[in-house]
Amino acid sequence: MGLKRKDLLSLTNLSAADISLILDTADSFKEVSGREIKKVPALRGKTVVNLFFEPSTRTRTSFELAAKRLSADVINFSPSSSSVVKGETLLDTARNIEAMQADIIVLRHSSAGAAETLARGVKSSVINAGDGWHEHPTQALLDLYTIRSRGMGFAGLKVAIVGDVAHSRVARSNIFALTKLGAEVRVVGPPTMIPLHIDQLGAHVYHNLDDGLRGVHVIMMLRLQLERQGRALFPTIREYARQYGLTNDRVKLAEPGAIVMHPGPINRGVEIAPDVADSLSSVILDQVANGVAVRMGILYLMSGAG
Amino acid sequence: MGLKRKDLLSLTNLSAADISLILDTADSFKEVSGREIKKVPALRGKTVVNLFFEPSTRTRTSFELAAKRLSADVINFSPSSSSVVKGETLLDTARNIEAMQADIIVLRHSSAGAAETLARGVKSSVINAGDGWHEHPTQALLDLYTIRSRGMGFAGLKVAIVGDVAHSRVARSNIFALTKLGAEVRVVGPPTMIPLHIDQLGAHVYHNLDDGLRGVHVIMMLRLQLERQGRALFPTIREYARQYGLTNDRVKLAEPGAIVMHPGPINRGVEIAPDVADSLSSVILDQVANGVAVRMGILYLMSGAG
Amino acid sequence: MGLKRKDLLSLTNLSAADISLILDTADSFKEVSGREIKKVPALRGKTVVNLFFEPSTRTRTSFELAAKRLSADVINFSPSSSSVVKGETLLDTARNIEAMQADIIVLRHSSAGAAETLARGVKSSVINAGDGWHEHPTQALLDLYTIRSRGMGFAGLKVAIVGDVAHSRVARSNIFALTKLGAEVRVVGPPTMIPLHIDQLGAHVYHNLDDGLRGVHVIMMLRLQLERQGRALFPTIREYARQYGLTNDRVKLAEPGAIVMHPGPINRGVEIAPDVADSLSSVILDQVANGVAVRMGILYLMSGAG
Repeated sequence: MGLKRKDLLSLTNLSAADISLILDTADSFKEVSGREIKKVPALRGKTVVNLFFEPSTRTRTSFELAAKRLSADVINFSPSSSSVVKGETLLDTARNIEAMQADIIVLRHSSAGAAETLARGVKSSVINAGDGWHEHPTQALLDLYTIRSRGMGFAGLKVAIVGDVAHSRVARSNIFALTKLGAEVRVVGPPTMIPLHIDQLGAHVYHNLDDGLRGVHVIMMLRLQLERQGRALFPTIREYARQYGLTNDRVKLAEPGAIVMHPGPINRGVEIAPDVADSLSSVILDQVANGVAVRMGILYLMSGAG
Repeated sequence: MGLKRKDLLSLTNLSAADISLILDTADSFKEVSGREIKKVPALRGKTVVNLFFEPSTRTRTSFELAAKRLSADVINFSPSSSSVVKGETLLDTARNIEAMQADIIVLRHSSAGAAETLARGVKSSVINAGDGWHEHPTQALLDLYTIRSRGMGFAGLKVAIVGDVAHSRVARSNIFALTKLGAEVRVVGPPTMIPLHIDQLGAHVYHNLDDGLRGVHVIMMLRLQLERQGRALFPTIREYARQYGLTNDRVKLAEPGAIVMHPGPINRGVEIAPDVADSLSSVILDQVANGVAVRMGILYLMSGAG
Repeated sequence: MGLKRKDLLSLTNLSAADISLILDTADSFKEVSGREIKKVPALRGKTVVNLFFEPSTRTRTSFELAAKRLSADVINFSPSSSSVVKGETLLDTARNIEAMQADIIVLRHSSAGAAETLARGVKSSVINAGDGWHEHPTQALLDLYTIRSRGMGFAGLKVAIVGDVAHSRVARSNIFALTKLGAEVRVVGPPTMIPLHIDQLGAHVYHNLDDGLRGVHVIMMLRLQLERQGRALFPTIREYARQYGLTNDRVKLAEPGAIVMHPGPINRGVEIAPDVADSLSSVILDQVANGVAVRMGILYLMSGAG
């Protein structure tokens, strides 16, 4: 079978069947990370390059572990301190990596569209690991995997995405995927954090958190980018936490059995109360664990081995 | 057999039998690094994460090599530039790593007690690779290994630890271990560098280097942290070198056949004269070589493979 | 047979037979990177340490991939942020790495002669991956390999090296190698960028690019080190591009079928016009691909496996 595509850039052009294939493939690898010997030879002799123009220890590590558990050779290539300083273009950097016979390039870049530019320019498979405020498809896929592994179906599922939706590639990728699969997506946040015309993507806008949470099955909190506070999206962090922070009382407004998600790293006491993060409703660490399995699945499918 | 413990945090709670087990296990791996093919499959499919909040190329490299020669998958995770900046707590970072199914987390952190906090919070095994001024148990174990491999017994062994004992986790771990094994430990340095009540750990205090060296079998020099000079522990480096620098003449005050140790990196001409560092008495590079073997032994025992 | 030498430091002391052996060995590995499974067990259990005092993502990655495709264990050791800050000497750092049983140390350093100093001080094999303005032998070898793989012989071959020859270790290594193999080497650039007495190395000096290119078989462009502009080697970048930038019209002055080389990263529109870099004459990406093969060959020969 296989995905029949060279790259994984976005969730907009993945069909529901493609998504299912990825989640099913992840399922078959999920078990590997629980074994005594967490390694399979599926990608032996393949080269995976993590090309990270933005630092991200967590996502890079997740991909690195996924590749290593598939027995691939992994190279971490963080050009910030090197070629980029020397003025090389993204495409020239990527063509160099391609020339070294990289099978798969995992790209993290601060510009929206960088992954697509790169994918068009090289024969290597490209996986978008986050491009600006655009998309972060593997994060959305691991979120879907986590929801599904809790026994929830997507049709009719009510999901609230809470926080700075306007600057969140995680939110965008999830909105694309969840609406495609038949879920009802709500975005919740102050007007400064909700993009105009987001309803055209099929999301319902709420500015009041309590209203937004009522009756949902999944609460997906976004990280407040504290380093972005200078931009004055919100008066103070304390005020943000009061209006948009998730507390146990607020979780009770959701459906019984609702799960709490967060892409990490969490700001305890800001967008999420510590006791919520550590509660039984929280699947935050499941997301991390599933991230490795989903990325193993994606690398496997992308490598042509599938 | 095995160590019957999840973590290696400190030498205070290791028994003499535990220490022997570790040194004996290291012995069996020492030979591996001398082979044509320096690799055994003992930890194949295991994941070791080097979680280094403080930069330390040497210690990190020693652990990385040890893990690779055991065929483990190794991830270097240096959060300084990433999640830590984003405000994540140590424990949240570690739980993420645990969620990725890390078998062993090797932690270097600037705060005393960090390794213990982490060990209580995660199911992965934790190895303390230095926590603030507290402990650096694998360094002490490789020191013990080096002493033992010179044919010296610990009972009645006289060891002088010279330098800034107050700010040395290496010194603390060695004092715990050596006194436990029946050695006589002297600490030598100016009053500003000798912690109060160190005698309660069983160490004898000397402020005069010549006196401290007389009759010892092992001279363990500590690195003068030049970057710490602002704190005025000593008037000038030259004066420090004059009073506490190890010269060949001073080595002669020790027992014939005494060995000179140093955890590295050495400051030639400060705490140790170049000709002493390069002399036949010096076992400084043996310590480095033994470090890989000892860490292989520890990783092996911690992995549950033992 | 084998190279019968411990180190690869310079092209001055390699014989034509040595060079042929390296290129032939690279040939046998070139095919590996084109396979479905890009891995051979030749260096399994060997330890290769990339000791890079200067950042160089590209060269480091090329060596890392070469080593991994040979199944070696690779350690990246970039001491800038660590031991070097702590004041350790180059030789002490290297002896530590040697003590950890590194088979091969790949050294990049800002000082000319650093590789030779290190090679004399350690038993590990040392490969010079660039030392100051001195030499960069593996780059020259991959250039030779690329020329040879285009079916060109070296005897009588006319090669123009264009740009800041005075500050280019790539140029120096190529001049040594090409003249040794019987090629005619021209160096082309403004007087500020051509070293005095370069003719004593057998190179012919041209200050006019058009004259220098006439009739050559190989055009080897050097990167303009934009970060070095403060030194006023040239009035403006625009003026440099006008006088010494390679355009398609200028390529036509060379022999029909001439190839265009560049060690990368390229400055598009400065030393090389974008359409030249992307033209059929350009072998720039071949150089990158061949770099992995040549370094596999060198690592293999150095490891004693050959």
